[in-house]
Amino acid sequence: MEAIAQVQAFTAIGIGLIFAFAALGTGIGFGLLGGKFLEGAARQPEVTGLLQVRMFIVAGLLDALAIIGVAFAALLMFANPLLAALG
Amino acid sequence: MEAIAQVQAFTAIGIGLIFAFAALGTGIGFGLLGGKFLEGAARQPEVTGLLQVRMFIVAGLLDALAIIGVAFAALLMFANPLLAALG
Amino acid sequence: MEAIAQVQAFTAIGIGLIFAFAALGTGIGFGLLGGKFLEGAARQPEVTGLLQVRMFIVAGLLDALAIIGVAFAALLMFANPLLAALG
Amino acid sequence: MEAIAQVQAFTAIGIGLIFAFAALGTGIGFGLLGGKFLEGAARQPEVTGLLQVRMFIVAGLLDALAIIGVAFAALLMFANPLLAALG
Amino acid sequence: MEAIAQVQAFTAIGIGLIFAFAALGTGIGFGLLGGKFLEGAARQPEVTGLLQVRMFIVAGLLDALAIIGVAFAALLMFANPLLAALG
Amino acid sequence: MEAIAQVQAFTAIGIGLIFAFAALGTGIGFGLLGGKFLEGAARQPEVTGLLQVRMFIVAGLLDALAIIGVAFAALLMFANPLLAALG
Amino acid sequence: MEAIAQVQAFTAIGIGLIFAFAALGTGIGFGLLGGKFLEGAARQPEVTGLLQVRMFIVAGLLDALAIIGVAFAALLMFANPLLAALG
Amino acid sequence: MEAIAQVQAFTAIGIGLIFAFAALGTGIGFGLLGGKFLEGAARQPEVTGLLQVRMFIVAGLLDALAIIGVAFAALLMFANPLLAALG
Amino acid sequence: MEAIAQVQAFTAIGIGLIFAFAALGTGIGFGLLGGKFLEGAARQPEVTGLLQVRMFIVAGLLDALAIIGVAFAALLMFANPLLAALG
Amino acid sequence: MEAIAQVQAFTAIGIGLIFAFAALGTGIGFGLLGGKFLEGAARQPEVTGLLQVRMFIVAGLLDALAIIGVAFAALLMFANPLLAALG
Amino acid sequence: MEAIAQVQAFTAIGIGLIFAFAALGTGIGFGLLGGKFLEGAARQPEVTGLLQVRMFIVAGLLDALAIIGVAFAALLMFANPLLAALG
Amino acid sequence: MEAIAQVQAFTAIGIGLIFAFAALGTGIGFGLLGGKFLEGAARQPEVTGLLQVRMFIVAGLLDALAIIGVAFAALLMFANPLLAALG
Amino acid sequence: MEAIAQVQAFTAIGIGLIFAFAALGTGIGFGLLGGKFLEGAARQPEVTGLLQVRMFIVAGLLDALAIIGVAFAALLMFANPLLAALG
Amino acid sequence: MEAIAQVQAFTAIGIGLIFAFAALGTGIGFGLLGGKFLEGAARQPEVTGLLQVRMFIVAGLLDALAIIGVAFAALLMFANPLLAALG
Repeated sequence: MEAIAQVQAFTAIGIGLIFAFAALGTGIGFGLLGGKFLEGAARQPEVTGLLQVRMFIVAGLLDALAIIGVAFAALLMFANPLLAALG
Repeated sequence: MEAIAQVQAFTAIGIGLIFAFAALGTGIGFGLLGGKFLEGAARQPEVTGLLQVRMFIVAGLLDALAIIGVAFAALLMFANPLLAALG
Repeated sequence: MEAIAQVQAFTAIGIGLIFAFAALGTGIGFGLLGGKFLEGAARQPEVTGLLQVRMFIVAGLLDALAIIGVAFAALLMFANPLLAALG
Repeated sequence: MEAIAQVQAFTAIGIGLIFAFAALGTGIGFGLLGGKFLEGAARQPEVTGLLQVRMFIVAGLLDALAIIGVAFAALLMFANPLLAALG
Repeated sequence: MEAIAQVQAFTAIGIGLIFAFAALGTGIGFGLLGGKFLEGAARQPEVTGLLQVRMFIVAGLLDALAIIGVAFAALLMFANPLLAALG
Repeated sequence: MEAIAQVQAFTAIGIGLIFAFAALGTGIGFGLLGGKFLEGAARQPEVTGLLQVRMFIVAGLLDALAIIGVAFAALLMFANPLLAALG
Repeated sequence: MEAIAQVQAFTAIGIGLIFAFAALGTGIGFGLLGGKFLEGAARQPEVTGLLQVRMFIVAGLLDALAIIGVAFAALLMFANPLLAALG
Repeated sequence: MEAIAQVQAFTAIGIGLIFAFAALGTGIGFGLLGGKFLEGAARQPEVTGLLQVRMFIVAGLLDALAIIGVAFAALLMFANPLLAALG
Repeated sequence: MEAIAQVQAFTAIGIGLIFAFAALGTGIGFGLLGGKFLEGAARQPEVTGLLQVRMFIVAGLLDALAIIGVAFAALLMFANPLLAALG
Repeated sequence: MEAIAQVQAFTAIGIGLIFAFAALGTGIGFGLLGGKFLEGAARQPEVTGLLQVRMFIVAGLLDALAIIGVAFAALLMFANPLLAALG
Repeated sequence: MEAIAQVQAFTAIGIGLIFAFAALGTGIGFGLLGGKFLEGAARQPEVTGLLQVRMFIVAGLLDALAIIGVAFAALLMFANPLLAALG
Repeated sequence: MEAIAQVQAFTAIGIGLIFAFAALGTGIGFGLLGGKFLEGAARQPEVTGLLQVRMFIVAGLLDALAIIGVAFAALLMFANPLLAALG
Repeated sequence: MEAIAQVQAFTAIGIGLIFAFAALGTGIGFGLLGGKFLEGAARQPEVTGLLQVRMFIVAGLLDALAIIGVAFAALLMFANPLLAALG
Repeated sequence: MEAIAQVQAFTAIGIGLIFAFAALGTGIGFGLLGGKFLEGAARQPEVTGLLQVRMFIVAGLLDALAIIGVAFAALLMFANPLLAALG
């Protein structure tokens, strides 16, 4: 019991780190990216559609790692594969 | 009892990290993004509507990870899946 | 008793982290955002009304995560759901 | 007795964090915001009244989270709800 | 006795954090704000009176949280409400 | 059992570090890269296609290490090769 | 005796934090503020008197919190009110 | 058993550090490098081919150390040479 | 004896913090302030006398807190008032 | 056995530090260097060959220490000379 | 004996902090100050004498706190007044 | 045996610090230096030879301390002179 | 013996701090100062002699504290005055 | 034996700090200094000889403290004077 609890407790910190930095990185990234997007859209409204499609592509790339991190964090939460070794 | 308490105590720190950095990242991100939005709107009031729609799209992307983090933090709080292994 | 105290003590640190970074993030965010708003309003007083409405929308987005964090911190304070597992 | 003391001691650190970062965030935020306000007022004295009203609105938003944090810190101080669980 | 000492010792650190960051935040904030004020006053001496009144208003807002923190720190010092629970 | 738990617990922290910094690095990187891309696309819409292909190439390079980190983190999670030595 | 020593030892660290950050904050703040003052005085020597009065007002505000911190630190030093509870 | 576990546990932290900073360094590096590349390509589309080849060369150099780190981290993971001494 | 030693040992760290940050804050502050002073004196040698008097006033304010900290640190060193409570 | 394990465990952390900072330093360095190279190549395509040779020379110098670090880390890994003293 | 050793050991750390930050603060401060001095001297060689005298005055102020720290650190080293209380 | 192991373990951390910061410092330094070199070479290709010789001289100075550190780290690794005292 | 060893061990850390920050502060300070000196010498070669003398004066001031720190560190190393109290 | 080992182990950390920061400070310092030197040499090739001599003088000053640190670190390594007190 003690052994499982130790793994789960450290896993809780690990999950916290993943979500915290995913949110921080996404916040900084979209703040920089979206600012340039709005700047471009304000200066040349006629290319906004074009820019928006481009921005979505970058946004997908920007989010990718954070989303992957979230997925793995969820896995750690619900079915911690690290516990299998204690089986 | 002790084992459960250890997991829950570390989970409390993890939850605190998630909310803290989600709020920080969102604050910095919207400070950068919204500043560009208001700048654009002030310089060209006629494109404000267009800019606002664009800004909402970026805002959705910017918030996404933080909101996901909040959702998982709530899950950790109410029904900590990490405790299942101690069952 | 000891087990509950351990969870509550770590929860106190978690709550402190949430409020501290929520206030910091909001302070930095509105400092950046509001500075741009006043700048725009000073340069073009005729669009201030328009800008102010826009600013409120961004402010809502900027505050959202911090407010959510506050709500959950209050929950942790008054009815700590992490203790249910110690039941 | 020991259990209560542990919770209260960690709560003292949590309260210190809340007040410390609330003051820091407010200081940085108003330093940025007020600087822009005075700049605008110096350049166009005729719009100062308008700017001041706007500034108060932003100030309210900027302070909100810090004030909320103060309120909850006061609650933690006088009637620590975290102790209820130790009943 | 030991339990009270633990709470008071951690409270001493908390008080130190509050005063330290209050002074730091106020120092940075007034450095930024006052610099803009003097700049404006030097460039347009005729509006100095107007600016000074405005500056005081911002100063009040800037100081508010730090002063509140000081008040609560004094409370923690003289009549630590956290000890009531150890009664 | 204790020995395995110690390795798994530290591995949980290691996994958390990998995902956290992968998301942070990707967020900052694409924020800088995508901002330049949108800037270029807004200024010269006729070269957007060319730029987008280039951007994807850089994006692949930028993501590479983070993705590799994710792959190894997944490996650590599901079949921790560090446990083989304890066999 | 041990209990009093623990409180006094932590108080020593708290006092050190207060003086250290008060000096740092004041140093940075007056570096920024005084630089602007000398700049203004050098560019328009005829308004130096006016500026100096203004600067003193800001200086008073800038110093206030640090001085208050010093006062309370002196109190902690000579008649530590935190010890009253150990009475 | 205990001795091997200690080495493997610290190795897990070491591996986490390697992947984390490799991803962070690569993210920052390609964000700076790729931004200059897209800028150059947007301003002079006729030299994009030339620039791209150059960029790949720099990219190889930029990635080299991170990739080497990954290779050694994989080695540490699957066949930890540090354990040989415990033989 | 042990109790006195604990207080004195922590006081030594506190004194070190005070002197260290006082020197750092003064160094940064006079670097910024003196740079502006020399700049002004170089550009308008005829106002150097006026500037120098002003600079001394700011220097007095800048140094004040650090000197106060030094005075109290000396007090802590020679006649540590924190020991009175152990009497 | 215990003594060897302690040395090897701390060596694992040391190796992690070496690879992590080598990758970070190389990433930042080539991001700055390569950006200037591409900028120069884009502005004057006719000197690209000359610049590329120069860049390789700098790259060699930039990488040198990191590569040396890697070599020594590999040595620490496979034949830890620190263990000879335990012989 | 143990009690004296504890105080002296912590004093050694305190002394290290004082010298370290005194050197750092002086280094940064004179780097900023001296750079401005040389700049002014290069642009207007005829006022170098005047500037140099001014610079010495600022240098005296800049060094003052660091020198005071050194004096007190020497005192701590040779005749640690903190030990008097252990007498 | 235990005593030797303790020295060797801490030496491993020290070696890691030396290599890590040597690589980081060299990376940042050559990134700044090489960027200026390529800039100069691109703007005035006719002085590239002259610049390259100069750059090598600076590079030698820049590397010197890092290389010395590496040499001493190697010494620590292979024939730790710190162990002689345990002889 | 144990008591002396404790003081000497902490003194070793203190000495390390002094030399480390002395080198860092001197490195940053001369990087800033020397850069300005070379800039001035390159722009006006006829005043180089004058500038160099001035630079030496500043260099003496910049180095002073670091050299003093080195002297005291050497004292700590060879004849640690902190040990006198253990006599 | 234990006492000597403790001093030597802490000395190893101290040596690591000295070399690490010496390399970092030298790297940053020469990156700034050498960049200015190459800039000056590229803009006015006719004064390169003059600049190079000047640069060497600054380089000597910049390196001085780091080299002194290295010398003392070597002393600590080969004939640790801190051990004399344990004699």
